[in-house]
Amino acid sequence: MFDLIIRNGRLVTASEVLPAGLDLGIKDERIAYIGLPLPGTESVQVIDAAGAYVTPGGIDSHVHIDQGNHPTTDKWENASKSAIAGGNTTVLAFSQQKRSESSLYTSLEQYHAKASGNSYCDYGFHLILTNPTEHILARELPAFVEQEGITSVKLYMTYDPLKLNDGELLDVMMTTRGLGMTTMVHAENHDMVSMIIKRLEANGHGDPFYHSVARPQLVENEATYRIISLAELTDTPILIVHMSAETAAKHVREAQARLLPIHAETCPHYVFLRSNDLAKPDFEGAKYVCSPPLRHQQSDLDAMWQAITNGTFTTFSSDHCPDKHDHPCGKKRGLDAEGKSNFKSILNGLPGVETRLPLLFNEAGEASHHKLTLPRFVQLTSTNPAKLYGLAHRKGSLSPGLDADIVIWYPPGHKFEDGSDQLTITNPMLHHSCDYTPFEGFKVSNWPRKVLLRGKVVWDKDDGGVLGRQDYGTFLKRGKPNIVTGRTGTVPQGMFQGETDLWRKT
Amino acid sequence: MFDLIIRNGRLVTASEVLPAGLDLGIKDERIAYIGLPLPGTESVQVIDAAGAYVTPGGIDSHVHIDQGNHPTTDKWENASKSAIAGGNTTVLAFSQQKRSESSLYTSLEQYHAKASGNSYCDYGFHLILTNPTEHILARELPAFVEQEGITSVKLYMTYDPLKLNDGELLDVMMTTRGLGMTTMVHAENHDMVSMIIKRLEANGHGDPFYHSVARPQLVENEATYRIISLAELTDTPILIVHMSAETAAKHVREAQARLLPIHAETCPHYVFLRSNDLAKPDFEGAKYVCSPPLRHQQSDLDAMWQAITNGTFTTFSSDHCPDKHDHPCGKKRGLDAEGKSNFKSILNGLPGVETRLPLLFNEAGEASHHKLTLPRFVQLTSTNPAKLYGLAHRKGSLSPGLDADIVIWYPPGHKFEDGSDQLTITNPMLHHSCDYTPFEGFKVSNWPRKVLLRGKVVWDKDDGGVLGRQDYGTFLKRGKPNIVTGRTGTVPQGMFQGETDLWRKT
Amino acid sequence: MFDLIIRNGRLVTASEVLPAGLDLGIKDERIAYIGLPLPGTESVQVIDAAGAYVTPGGIDSHVHIDQGNHPTTDKWENASKSAIAGGNTTVLAFSQQKRSESSLYTSLEQYHAKASGNSYCDYGFHLILTNPTEHILARELPAFVEQEGITSVKLYMTYDPLKLNDGELLDVMMTTRGLGMTTMVHAENHDMVSMIIKRLEANGHGDPFYHSVARPQLVENEATYRIISLAELTDTPILIVHMSAETAAKHVREAQARLLPIHAETCPHYVFLRSNDLAKPDFEGAKYVCSPPLRHQQSDLDAMWQAITNGTFTTFSSDHCPDKHDHPCGKKRGLDAEGKSNFKSILNGLPGVETRLPLLFNEAGEASHHKLTLPRFVQLTSTNPAKLYGLAHRKGSLSPGLDADIVIWYPPGHKFEDGSDQLTITNPMLHHSCDYTPFEGFKVSNWPRKVLLRGKVVWDKDDGGVLGRQDYGTFLKRGKPNIVTGRTGTVPQGMFQGETDLWRKT
Amino acid sequence: MFDLIIRNGRLVTASEVLPAGLDLGIKDERIAYIGLPLPGTESVQVIDAAGAYVTPGGIDSHVHIDQGNHPTTDKWENASKSAIAGGNTTVLAFSQQKRSESSLYTSLEQYHAKASGNSYCDYGFHLILTNPTEHILARELPAFVEQEGITSVKLYMTYDPLKLNDGELLDVMMTTRGLGMTTMVHAENHDMVSMIIKRLEANGHGDPFYHSVARPQLVENEATYRIISLAELTDTPILIVHMSAETAAKHVREAQARLLPIHAETCPHYVFLRSNDLAKPDFEGAKYVCSPPLRHQQSDLDAMWQAITNGTFTTFSSDHCPDKHDHPCGKKRGLDAEGKSNFKSILNGLPGVETRLPLLFNEAGEASHHKLTLPRFVQLTSTNPAKLYGLAHRKGSLSPGLDADIVIWYPPGHKFEDGSDQLTITNPMLHHSCDYTPFEGFKVSNWPRKVLLRGKVVWDKDDGGVLGRQDYGTFLKRGKPNIVTGRTGTVPQGMFQGETDLWRKT
Repeated sequence: MFDLIIRNGRLVTASEVLPAGLDLGIKDERIAYIGLPLPGTESVQVIDAAGAYVTPGGIDSHVHIDQGNHPTTDKWENASKSAIAGGNTTVLAFSQQKRSESSLYTSLEQYHAKASGNSYCDYGFHLILTNPTEHILARELPAFVEQEGITSVKLYMTYDPLKLNDGELLDVMMTTRGLGMTTMVHAENHDMVSMIIKRLEANGHGDPFYHSVARPQLVENEATYRIISLAELTDTPILIVHMSAETAAKHVREAQARLLPIHAETCPHYVFLRSNDLAKPDFEGAKYVCSPPLRHQQSDLDAMWQAITNGTFTTFSSDHCPDKHDHPCGKKRGLDAEGKSNFKSILNGLPGVETRLPLLFNEAGEASHHKLTLPRFVQLTSTNPAKLYGLAHRKGSLSPGLDADIVIWYPPGHKFEDGSDQLTITNPMLHHSCDYTPFEGFKVSNWPRKVLLRGKVVWDKDDGGVLGRQDYGTFLKRGKPNIVTGRTGTVPQGMFQGETDLWRKT
Repeated sequence: MFDLIIRNGRLVTASEVLPAGLDLGIKDERIAYIGLPLPGTESVQVIDAAGAYVTPGGIDSHVHIDQGNHPTTDKWENASKSAIAGGNTTVLAFSQQKRSESSLYTSLEQYHAKASGNSYCDYGFHLILTNPTEHILARELPAFVEQEGITSVKLYMTYDPLKLNDGELLDVMMTTRGLGMTTMVHAENHDMVSMIIKRLEANGHGDPFYHSVARPQLVENEATYRIISLAELTDTPILIVHMSAETAAKHVREAQARLLPIHAETCPHYVFLRSNDLAKPDFEGAKYVCSPPLRHQQSDLDAMWQAITNGTFTTFSSDHCPDKHDHPCGKKRGLDAEGKSNFKSILNGLPGVETRLPLLFNEAGEASHHKLTLPRFVQLTSTNPAKLYGLAHRKGSLSPGLDADIVIWYPPGHKFEDGSDQLTITNPMLHHSCDYTPFEGFKVSNWPRKVLLRGKVVWDKDDGGVLGRQDYGTFLKRGKPNIVTGRTGTVPQGMFQGETDLWRKT
Repeated sequence: MFDLIIRNGRLVTASEVLPAGLDLGIKDERIAYIGLPLPGTESVQVIDAAGAYVTPGGIDSHVHIDQGNHPTTDKWENASKSAIAGGNTTVLAFSQQKRSESSLYTSLEQYHAKASGNSYCDYGFHLILTNPTEHILARELPAFVEQEGITSVKLYMTYDPLKLNDGELLDVMMTTRGLGMTTMVHAENHDMVSMIIKRLEANGHGDPFYHSVARPQLVENEATYRIISLAELTDTPILIVHMSAETAAKHVREAQARLLPIHAETCPHYVFLRSNDLAKPDFEGAKYVCSPPLRHQQSDLDAMWQAITNGTFTTFSSDHCPDKHDHPCGKKRGLDAEGKSNFKSILNGLPGVETRLPLLFNEAGEASHHKLTLPRFVQLTSTNPAKLYGLAHRKGSLSPGLDADIVIWYPPGHKFEDGSDQLTITNPMLHHSCDYTPFEGFKVSNWPRKVLLRGKVVWDKDDGGVLGRQDYGTFLKRGKPNIVTGRTGTVPQGMFQGETDLWRKT
Repeated sequence: MFDLIIRNGRLVTASEVLPAGLDLGIKDERIAYIGLPLPGTESVQVIDAAGAYVTPGGIDSHVHIDQGNHPTTDKWENASKSAIAGGNTTVLAFSQQKRSESSLYTSLEQYHAKASGNSYCDYGFHLILTNPTEHILARELPAFVEQEGITSVKLYMTYDPLKLNDGELLDVMMTTRGLGMTTMVHAENHDMVSMIIKRLEANGHGDPFYHSVARPQLVENEATYRIISLAELTDTPILIVHMSAETAAKHVREAQARLLPIHAETCPHYVFLRSNDLAKPDFEGAKYVCSPPLRHQQSDLDAMWQAITNGTFTTFSSDHCPDKHDHPCGKKRGLDAEGKSNFKSILNGLPGVETRLPLLFNEAGEASHHKLTLPRFVQLTSTNPAKLYGLAHRKGSLSPGLDADIVIWYPPGHKFEDGSDQLTITNPMLHHSCDYTPFEGFKVSNWPRKVLLRGKVVWDKDDGGVLGRQDYGTFLKRGKPNIVTGRTGTVPQGMFQGETDLWRKT
């Protein structure tokens, strides 16, 4: 009748913790049923989850793996194994158009080649657009949505040569809204950063800490307000990635109050780490360089926690982007030819796909200081990414009919190997290829005990670790987002009803 | 294996619309199973819900039935029948303490006596506190929570003799927070209203329309801000009932952003009706008298819709409070002995338990102008009331293990008896005892086709109408709310960590 | 031609610092002339103010002197001498109605008797209303405006037996708006405070510090929002006295943005002192007991400074209310019969009329950390009180035609007696009768060198100190405020144009 | 003793209306005294201003006259005569750098040549920077401040080829802050406008009305937020010119609350005219084309009035920029070679220097619907521009020692030639060279009766009209602004104290 039953766990959906005593039955890679134990299932294989929370497999919707512009130490094998071991069953990585490429297919083929057959988890690609030609917008993007199952783009407001100016952003958004795609945006004001970097350099400030000075919160606040304005003008659903600034988050919340289609994401490092880590001696600080940078004050982090709980953030992603600190060419340490450090040369990015779920789970539940419930945990890490990126027909929920992607946690009171209530995170226990984790020494109360991908146990922490195969992960053709629709019909501020129809027709 | 299967509907949870093709199996009054159709169920009775949405039974958490201070034309038989016919499987009514009563049990017994054996739907009581003596707070309230299953109180900031002053509100809140109860508040500034009424009378303004002048939005804005302040001071979870004013709703949202335990409710009449109805001639206006009053402008209603969708409101209730317009003593018409109308004498309240769900369902879904999704519809009308009022262990969700309280709607494209796509609401089709509905002539696209209460079909619109029995409804002992905890630990504005511990100990 | 000329000072108005090189000529107690030196004035007596700032005489619009409900150690002789020595030429004290008095004239005569012939400075009375009977509102208040020259009332939202409930506040406001009076309000929520005090006592917390715990910022925030709402409803100009809380000040600013007639005042102690002073040992803390209390954090004080500069506050007053710490009956120390301290018994109030101007002047000017300009200093301490309280026809500005009330400061670079650039405030140098100043040890860069009241030098710090006579001060009949009009015509939130006319007629 | 006395007027300063009965004496072009009538002045020439308000000469700090990029129909002779007749004694026009010019002196000489000897009023130049090279920033700007008396720059965020990108804006601001200059900014998002225009064109929408569609309020809101962010980052005082959008004004007010050095200006057309004028037939609409465009709704205008009164706006200027509607080359009508209209070709700008003061004066005073006082009128039109642009040592106030630049209005109750209480504005009565006024038919209650520039009557409406000479106006070397300082010391959001010192040193 079923291939496998998970018995007696506390199933957590994006809305509720279901009553105890339920079976979750799996058949043909999908969840076949949830309910009271059925007669006739005695012979089915059972996983006993008594007392343990059971959540949908994590969807890490923001990971960088072996990109052309940033080859990362993790290749697909490493990153996907790390993902699985951290409770993720799906990752969404990037296919990056090079400025010089006139067709998106060039890069897409390369990215497929890298991932195909090398992923322990299911996966998809967001498309990084750096040169949105008319051909690409008019011809290729529709094909990507219809044929390639790629229904999201990512745009940069900063970084040469990735960055688009406002006119380019608008052109892309006028297209993606029509296609029903989700538009992701890295929102930092490029010119502010450039000005500060130039002056920091002139003042001889090259240490990693100055990275956090070079990209103050105003940089993010401004770009966030701007991209929300462009989204309001064009009525385009967006997700602002990796937010870290309180005022920026308030802009998002204010827009959401008015029902504008604005979504936002934050990441573990913006709620657990501060810029003092960047000041660690002997280039240790370089391990913590990411953009936006870690913020200075605990109150900055508190503001992000508040936005996690109060609903401002739609997703909580890792922005996994691992480079070895002991990088062969010294890039993560920002060393120049003479071995002198300059923060602007340090490779941006932190590893984190494996630690994302345990770190957040540790803060959730009844005793949460942040008032973070388990259903909200599920929303942020699985259900919302599925909805936002067109995967909800297969992923993101413990619902019959969907893929049997499941995390079983340890029951409360579990003692880890060392007899402790808590597990201490150390780099050797992780499965990425990076030589450090920024969360070294953090203690968490739980960890994915077993992870199932499409009904198969691919991670068993107590019995074999990673059990999946490197070619088990499949590419996911995604549908249209169903958390927001492409055109929401809101009348922008100060306009009369129908005003935008005057110019949106063409 | 099962007593009944609902087959092939589109099950809607508070988070998602589940995939098509699922069975929902019922056994022993509960949902036993949700999943792919199982072998061996051929002989089970099946309701074919093909193409139709299936939602949890509605919980109308704010209805007035035959209260001591307001005997309403509906008795339990009428109101509960009307509830069932409108898709509700649970209602929460009130047990009202009289000012003169020194024990809560006096009234409770009376209210039990009225309801017991006379309800078509399951039910519970909120407790209206009008004289919160020390004995009641210290002795009886704990017993109500532990033994009577009554875990919510309602307090009035207006109306003689119901109203409590700030000191009384604080005393009650300091108790209810400790007991983990939900505290409901009617928030209008009494003295503002009294002053205006006195002056309207002096100016000879007695027509029903002046009721809307006597209670302007400022009355609600002020009281809302005040009760939020008291809740912040005491760290007490509250729900502000029947909100109608934009600024008041903004105060709620601002408090929620700071994670204060503030919940709010609005009602159908505040989003569908305007004060111009109060100006109808020949005392017709009296039909629309409720407090807070209907608001003047469409923009006022739009603001409520926005707050419905953006998450400000936790629940959407009817505030069902029916009186015959052709009231034997003329009270609904506000007639004095000489047959002269005075708005201040008009009985407050509108009927609405039966129309609440169809009216809101009609505005939800993919094409919703208000961007109201079906899962949000389920949250507002069923899941959130269950969580907020301690019913989530039995009600509020299509989850295995919970009571099989279910609404099956008509599939899209259904034609009603007159061949139309839409059903026109008229009073004769309703099951209350009132001689009018304020929504006369409203058209809706759907209506509950079948309603199941604990697995039994109690309403079949096409085949028999109300099928339930008058004694099928049971009293529900409620647990503690699990949408918020009794003490949230937030540090109020301007205080230092631990400051409130100095005086909250006793 | 003139009686006296002040030559060569830098005259400061509420808008500008006038060019150097001007004469200010005085004749018959008034400023007769401001301009370039005239021929024919050689024989006139001249005060050389070269390089020194010259400002209008300070108007301290909030001082308590020998009130029936609080007899203060300062009588009129002391307080008015202290005022003069601190640069004030006018003070506004209070005539307090006792609850038992059915006519306002009873108390007024007593207060006139106390002040008349005993004041070194000019003075007026605000009227404290504690029992606003219909007779008083309808008959006496108009007479006070027309005949007694008393055009402001003060109302309390807290303190038994002073406090008015919302209905009483509304009744008074509906009257004062019609009479064009300014309505002052002490805004704290009485019931919140009572509840906390009761519980602090139960927990044995009697030390002075707990006074600051008993009246947290929420108490002020709530009452401020409430009184603004009442003012919006009735369209009544108000001034909220002695504000100390950031959120409360934001409510004021928001109301001002909408052009509501809301004014506000803060005091020196709320920008220079913190609650840690209340924790001083050996009952020293009792010296700092005032309501609202001193706030906890420097950031609280910073918020008040911001509101001083950004225009939120209309006036900056001392709230002078001196009691000897070594009070004969122990009241300032809050001692009970057994010599045990209880903060709730401590007499509220701080001395400050003499230090108000030097403390604020010290923070003003080009190098001000608070960006406080000298014209803004003049607005806050003299021009605005004159406008707000109906004195602008005689006081508050260095304008020809007005009373020659003038402060001449020391020129920059002046060395005080001890050769220092700064003067250290100590209690013995002050002229009140109190045995302490809360600003003991504070250093200021300047002090009124000479003070002129109606053209006569009444204070010369370097030559005789207080030169005025105890009977020189005169009672000021005040006119109607001209900073705001009695009826402003703003349509309250959510109302239609003309709605309030329906009930404001009577 | 004096050259001239203005007797018995009601002198209005930026703070007060002075008592009646004062003389204002003039000697050697300056105000020599204000005071009670002096003996010995019997033989001095007197202007009787009995009952009339007397205000400082208007300073129109935003006028365009004969610019290289926009030659306007008004040359200096016309515009300055028009200014005088409308109560202005000073105008600030522009010297515009061409993109191709590597030195600012090239254009400055040309602009001096145009104005010198041709102006009826005093004048100065703002500098339009379009190509801020390092040489200009490092060498020429300091010289402009020190030697040329030009202490303000204007920057454009829109218009090709004037517009600067964010990096250029930052570079200029880092310079001007150090020099203590005022930085003016035209804040509209260029790319938003371009995108809309392109699409309007593609849809065949060329009529003048579409100009208002092409530049919606979001365009201004976004750019306003952005430039405030840049100003906060660099701590640079700015004035945002010609604001017209409610949300943008709220951004300004919010920044002002935090004491950021943000100033703003609005203009008559944004408070008196709406976009329906742009829809007038037969190209009449072209008369109303300006940027930002006229807004759609009365509520948009109300929001600007509110910001005028509540202090958000620092100045109220005309943005005088006259072109003949019947323009020889058809440019004001936006005609192309084939005589077809296209709004994007229409010359932007409206005439208004002569009507600015009477239009605003008409709305001020005790009965003002907008609660606009006469002192606030003086602030907006004269005192604040003087302070903001470094003219306060000579202009902007009725203060002894300053230039005798004075407007005498008609006394209340004055009847105009046609016996009416009101004057109807018609184009023939104006002195510009334009063939229309956008305020044709507007009625005002007053008009400058006499205007004095440096003590000389240059306009007498009843006796000769313009009496001044074309070469009487002089170029004004301006000092540094004293309304704000160049560096204010505010710590930007999210930064630690001293953070900006790390990069502002160089």
